[in-house]
Amino acid sequence: MVNVAILGYGTVGSGVYEVITTNNKLINKKAGEDVSIKYVLDLRDFPGDPVEKVLVHDFNVILEDPSVKVVVEVMGGVEPAYTFAKKSLLAGKSVCTSNKELVANKGPELIRIAKENKVNFLFEASCGGGIPIIRPLNSSLTADDIIEISGILNGTTNYILTKMTDEGWDFDTALKKAQELGYAERNPEADVLGYDACRKIAILSSLAYGKTVGYEDIHTEGITSVTYEDIEYAKKMGYAIKLIASSEKKDGKIYAMVAPMLVRRDHPLCSINGVFNAIFVRGNMLGDAMFYGSGAGKLPTASAVAGDVVDAVRHVGKNIMVFWDEEKEDLQDIGDFKHQFFVRVKGDKDTVKEKAEKLFSVTGYTDAGIDNETGFVTEIMKEDDFEKAYAQLEGAVAKLRIKD
Amino acid sequence: MVNVAILGYGTVGSGVYEVITTNNKLINKKAGEDVSIKYVLDLRDFPGDPVEKVLVHDFNVILEDPSVKVVVEVMGGVEPAYTFAKKSLLAGKSVCTSNKELVANKGPELIRIAKENKVNFLFEASCGGGIPIIRPLNSSLTADDIIEISGILNGTTNYILTKMTDEGWDFDTALKKAQELGYAERNPEADVLGYDACRKIAILSSLAYGKTVGYEDIHTEGITSVTYEDIEYAKKMGYAIKLIASSEKKDGKIYAMVAPMLVRRDHPLCSINGVFNAIFVRGNMLGDAMFYGSGAGKLPTASAVAGDVVDAVRHVGKNIMVFWDEEKEDLQDIGDFKHQFFVRVKGDKDTVKEKAEKLFSVTGYTDAGIDNETGFVTEIMKEDDFEKAYAQLEGAVAKLRIKD
Repeated sequence: MVNVAILGYGTVGSGVYEVITTNNKLINKKAGEDVSIKYVLDLRDFPGDPVEKVLVHDFNVILEDPSVKVVVEVMGGVEPAYTFAKKSLLAGKSVCTSNKELVANKGPELIRIAKENKVNFLFEASCGGGIPIIRPLNSSLTADDIIEISGILNGTTNYILTKMTDEGWDFDTALKKAQELGYAERNPEADVLGYDACRKIAILSSLAYGKTVGYEDIHTEGITSVTYEDIEYAKKMGYAIKLIASSEKKDGKIYAMVAPMLVRRDHPLCSINGVFNAIFVRGNMLGDAMFYGSGAGKLPTASAVAGDVVDAVRHVGKNIMVFWDEEKEDLQDIGDFKHQFFVRVKGDKDTVKEKAEKLFSVTGYTDAGIDNETGFVTEIMKEDDFEKAYAQLEGAVAKLRIKD
Repeated sequence: MVNVAILGYGTVGSGVYEVITTNNKLINKKAGEDVSIKYVLDLRDFPGDPVEKVLVHDFNVILEDPSVKVVVEVMGGVEPAYTFAKKSLLAGKSVCTSNKELVANKGPELIRIAKENKVNFLFEASCGGGIPIIRPLNSSLTADDIIEISGILNGTTNYILTKMTDEGWDFDTALKKAQELGYAERNPEADVLGYDACRKIAILSSLAYGKTVGYEDIHTEGITSVTYEDIEYAKKMGYAIKLIASSEKKDGKIYAMVAPMLVRRDHPLCSINGVFNAIFVRGNMLGDAMFYGSGAGKLPTASAVAGDVVDAVRHVGKNIMVFWDEEKEDLQDIGDFKHQFFVRVKGDKDTVKEKAEKLFSVTGYTDAGIDNETGFVTEIMKEDDFEKAYAQLEGAVAKLRIKD
């Protein structure tokens, strides 16, 4: 029998408890050992809840119990999660976490400590909730040079953009609805400003390319400036607007960014709607692949954590290879990125054409029925060059990148 | 260093050779050992090809070389692939294969022999080409009770149906084009009659549920009877017609079938077009997930095989857990399946309504502009009951199941 301790009995923690107790027989079979939850750590009490019989308030009870081989950290935030995770690994216990803050900030160090102590630091649920993506990157896509990893990694913003598109709602209405449904936090900053997606793409990029991609180095824009009018143009052009967290490797250099982008109808990410997430991977041999599912939610996330518990139990005393060096990856400056850009300008097509073609190579114009406005799309150009030209464009209203 | 032998230098075999030589540095790093191709077995000679220096014509050279730890079987067909794979496993060599015939026919036996000999029988490329699905089923979705696994598992038929839908081509034109482009064989039976998809869903279902799902027990229909008119109705109703290979677990019983079905626009499988494949999985905790990518093609398939080689090298001397018992799974009889059905009948809406409502509970009628014809959709009903009623329906033209 392998004993497990869960740190935190919040949404994900109670989900992990539910998954492991509900699917216990199946999990024992898959793990090759009986898996038993010996402790749940939480500062609160839960009178009447079945968790009561295993509830503890002091982390040291868990740390000092040598029968606990797997620690599930689902508290969120860097501290005390980091201290607890590190002490657990040093004490010879594997750690499974859903905590993207912890992984984005301390991942490579904890991976190294796990390796040194012949245990495992697993974090499948930290990106894309229930979607299997971390283990496929580590164990399946091992023969490929990954040249792109891009995703819709935040369900809240995808729900908002989907509703703005399908129902014609404005941003505020869609956000309010997302909050009512529990998809968005009372303070939605981390989601709508792109911070959540940024941490996730930092983790995925680090695993894809092998060195640490610092989330603080990734150019990040949220969706708060996306308007009804932008969406009308997108529809007219056959695109969808999505918050894309993306990184690409070109000539050995890594280009990473988070921003709302126009996505072509024939790109697999275009049809990912509502709170669903998807991660698109391009390999030099594999070509294109995509992983789709519930990016958040109690049980999907808990299912991914419990899958990590099974893997940790299968590998007691053995370290599973993970390639994520502590060395920092140099990211390419945003100014060097190349995209096609979509631009909205005041004026009818003839006026706009005259102004635009002095500054840009234009591939086409769009009239989306917005009063006294014309949209156009540029050829592929560097961000720096685009910004310089855009600053000179009289009557410019808005701009959006087009995903290549 | 770990030596590898490749059995067969056809499309996939030469692809595996290319992937392992092109990405050699990266593969060595991921495998934790240098991976070297010591032999390629083929009956033919390849004068001037770089493979010449490792080419052998006699399998025993490979079998009797104890330095060969991994054998890649990419010959196709059951024999001599089965004999070679079995002998390799018994000699303490892991086997990686892309051969769905071999896996569907001999999978559980070879998995057992691998386990008994502390080696591995790996077959990621046998279903869905480059798409990671076998390893995620074995190693990621381990905390879930899988209640459905369904997919678009054949690129040829998906290409044909996509072209019939987007370009208005008839079946024969689309098949001819698929043959010209090399997507379909000269003899397209295995694809268009659903046999290929059937073998793949048998493999995936066996892994999902743990016992052997025999492909010969799965009710299988191809796409040869799908017409331009069917597709017009599908468009009108907001559906797409896809060849769906599907299995579901309900009340402990397994329902598996391969058939063209109407798929709702909001189902993730609906937007999978062209030669791409996708596998949809529903777990009791995870909810819905989908895996998408190139279902065939030299390099994507070879990438999956080479990923298996990396895994085999990482696990020399250790068996990786796979749950697929030799015991046969009892499949539910086709007559007990429940679906909504779409039916086309001669006559205008009033005439058809009168006839149809004597025999079926109808949920709606569709006029797709086909002369003297009306379509209707039934409520969910058993196949047996549907067939009885359909046989009595005067003027019936065609029927299709609707994917739930």
